[in-house]
Amino acid sequence: MENTFALKSWVPGADASGFPVQNLPFGVFRHEGDCRVAVRIGDYALDLLNLWRIGLLDGLGLKLSVLQNDFLNDLISLGDKKRKALRSRLQDLLSENADAIEREKTNRCLKPLSETEMKLPLNIGDYTDFYSSEHHARNVGTMFRGAENALMPNWKSLPVAYHGRSSSIIASGKPVSWPKGQICDSEGIPTIGESQRVDFELEMAFVIGKNSKQGNPVEMKKAGDHVFGFVLFNDWSARDIQRWEYVPLGPFAGKNFASSISHWITPLEALEPFRTAGPEQSPDPLEYLQKQSDWHFDVTLEVSVFTVDDHEEVICRTNSKHLYWDICQQLAHHTLGGCNVRVGDLMASGTISGPNKGEWGSMLEASWNGEQPIVFGNGEKRSFLKEGDVVCLRGFAEFKGVRIELGEVRNQLLARSEEAVATAERNILN
Amino acid sequence: MENTFALKSWVPGADASGFPVQNLPFGVFRHEGDCRVAVRIGDYALDLLNLWRIGLLDGLGLKLSVLQNDFLNDLISLGDKKRKALRSRLQDLLSENADAIEREKTNRCLKPLSETEMKLPLNIGDYTDFYSSEHHARNVGTMFRGAENALMPNWKSLPVAYHGRSSSIIASGKPVSWPKGQICDSEGIPTIGESQRVDFELEMAFVIGKNSKQGNPVEMKKAGDHVFGFVLFNDWSARDIQRWEYVPLGPFAGKNFASSISHWITPLEALEPFRTAGPEQSPDPLEYLQKQSDWHFDVTLEVSVFTVDDHEEVICRTNSKHLYWDICQQLAHHTLGGCNVRVGDLMASGTISGPNKGEWGSMLEASWNGEQPIVFGNGEKRSFLKEGDVVCLRGFAEFKGVRIELGEVRNQLLARSEEAVATAERNILN
Repeated sequence: MENTFALKSWVPGADASGFPVQNLPFGVFRHEGDCRVAVRIGDYALDLLNLWRIGLLDGLGLKLSVLQNDFLNDLISLGDKKRKALRSRLQDLLSENADAIEREKTNRCLKPLSETEMKLPLNIGDYTDFYSSEHHARNVGTMFRGAENALMPNWKSLPVAYHGRSSSIIASGKPVSWPKGQICDSEGIPTIGESQRVDFELEMAFVIGKNSKQGNPVEMKKAGDHVFGFVLFNDWSARDIQRWEYVPLGPFAGKNFASSISHWITPLEALEPFRTAGPEQSPDPLEYLQKQSDWHFDVTLEVSVFTVDDHEEVICRTNSKHLYWDICQQLAHHTLGGCNVRVGDLMASGTISGPNKGEWGSMLEASWNGEQPIVFGNGEKRSFLKEGDVVCLRGFAEFKGVRIELGEVRNQLLARSEEAVATAERNILN
Repeated sequence: MENTFALKSWVPGADASGFPVQNLPFGVFRHEGDCRVAVRIGDYALDLLNLWRIGLLDGLGLKLSVLQNDFLNDLISLGDKKRKALRSRLQDLLSENADAIEREKTNRCLKPLSETEMKLPLNIGDYTDFYSSEHHARNVGTMFRGAENALMPNWKSLPVAYHGRSSSIIASGKPVSWPKGQICDSEGIPTIGESQRVDFELEMAFVIGKNSKQGNPVEMKKAGDHVFGFVLFNDWSARDIQRWEYVPLGPFAGKNFASSISHWITPLEALEPFRTAGPEQSPDPLEYLQKQSDWHFDVTLEVSVFTVDDHEEVICRTNSKHLYWDICQQLAHHTLGGCNVRVGDLMASGTISGPNKGEWGSMLEASWNGEQPIVFGNGEKRSFLKEGDVVCLRGFAEFKGVRIELGEVRNQLLARSEEAVATAERNILN
């Protein structure tokens, strides 16, 4: 590991960026009518199809169709060994010790990101959203049921989760349309209208890297084998729609209008050095959820909102290690009954909040359900999001001067009708 | 329509079966290492790839890759016009007025079903489960919250739904593994074990036939354009797992171990003559849910359980027209906030129950949460399902002697451990 941290790259700016040779997240970009797999190094996308064509990926058992592909799923499906061999080869090619001729050839396969059209990198079969942050669950529970009843009786026994909608998961950069829906007014009368409480949720998601078989639960000690990598995940939410609809079957239209993920999927290998213990779990989890090793990650997370006049307000800064349930526990629970997982499935953490104000991963918490509007540095007030707001999730881990960034997730919330905006402003003024 | 009902087929047995020339559901079968699209006529699968190869589908704009395919999605994606032209051509070829030479050629493309290995016909991107039967919602609500609070306040305002798990949807014929999970005992202590309350749910699902665009709600008057066809759907459930986990985010592991669908997808055209009005809706739905025409279906539905000694017990006989919300309302609500739908998505009705005992589509209701075990004709008692039980869903519509059957869904529940069986038996005796 020491060696890996010492590794430097010849790519300009890479070492000092969040995308050094130790990161190398995978993504997919459009290129003259087709799509190609890349890894990111510094501010460049390394075109793996070109690299393959000029012979620099020979001997790794890769077929053209895996690299000329709309999605990463086929690459991921090659399995752990081939993927690691590819990563190792790419690190060799990009390191300062690379052979001079190979380095020159590799250089010709680098594409500046500013000229690269990235796309949604995964064909997501199923997306599951957990609810694994105790601080988040307590905040929301306290808000709506009081501090004594904040956590439901099942919360510390199992990683609560629900199934989300895959079709509306978009990549960073794509705008989100302001959601409409059924909302219940203060007199209990349902009406239809634009949501007045659009929110983000700061989450991390892991991507399934290996299928499991239906009827065969994935045990804790094998769960890590099913993890390909990580993305930041914004689970856009309309709190007022959600509040009216969610009993008894859970969130639906309040969530399914959009979720967004980063263009780049950071492989598990890049985050391995940042594995850490999570908070103590009490009571002891049942046997099938008992930890075999540390599967939390020490990743700093941050949410900014950019207003239309480009003021950046940091809403939240927290860390993924605050989650109560780890990813192996999530997977063991998910598959316990026999549910299978497939390559490309997303497992999102649920909103990640830390213990203190300023570490809470949603506007709902940050404005305490609108009771304590946030005053921005430019004087604006916000309880929930406003038209034109750009929400940006960022994440990074750092050790010995090496910084591993997760690809950012940045999406703008599109304007809604004037009438709705006027109403929202009245609500904020009141 | 009169003409269509009068149409007869030269295929032996087809007219008297539930799969006459007016039905022609689509499916996919395995054939020497590849998969092919077929329609069902009587007890035969008509191999569309062979038909195409010998030129009988010329002029319809079909490519080989659409018919030699693991799934129907590409065929469905051709769109309404091409699909209808194909259906019409197939009806011509199979009708008793068919040209003699073509008939002979078509005959050579028929494959007895007993020699045909059918498979899961759809690549299901997302699966949504509605909760659209008032009788079912009232039964379950009464059981757990009393008759006064049976329906939640939102139930008559919107078609309540949750997102389900796509990965574990299997075809008829494949066994279901007995689900394990976390269950809360009578003293409130969570334990892990085999479910003691495995159940079926009788549902119908419609298959999305046309993509919608994210951010663009599908209006009621256009919703029918997005419907390709229908399948019977068994939403296998573990009631004890579900009961402990479902607050506050809805069903998860109590449902995601398996759902099963029929091999054959009956196109909307075959059920068009059976469109009918649903029950009166009171209060009037909000504008975006107001009906433009009748989108309920007069389809008789039935569930049988076959015991290991092959006794068939009919648990339920009901009708799809008892549903409160129709499929257009479901789709309009689903997409209102901006959620998009994709070809191959499944939209399941939720358990379909009629008003009276004997018309209830789950063991939970039929045994009234285990309080009134069902006494089978062979003397066995059942509150929930037992190892080895085969659950069979059937459905049909009939008019003027023409019977349109939905492909049946028949799956066996695999044995669990002896210990668990002993416990279950004690529970039934007590």
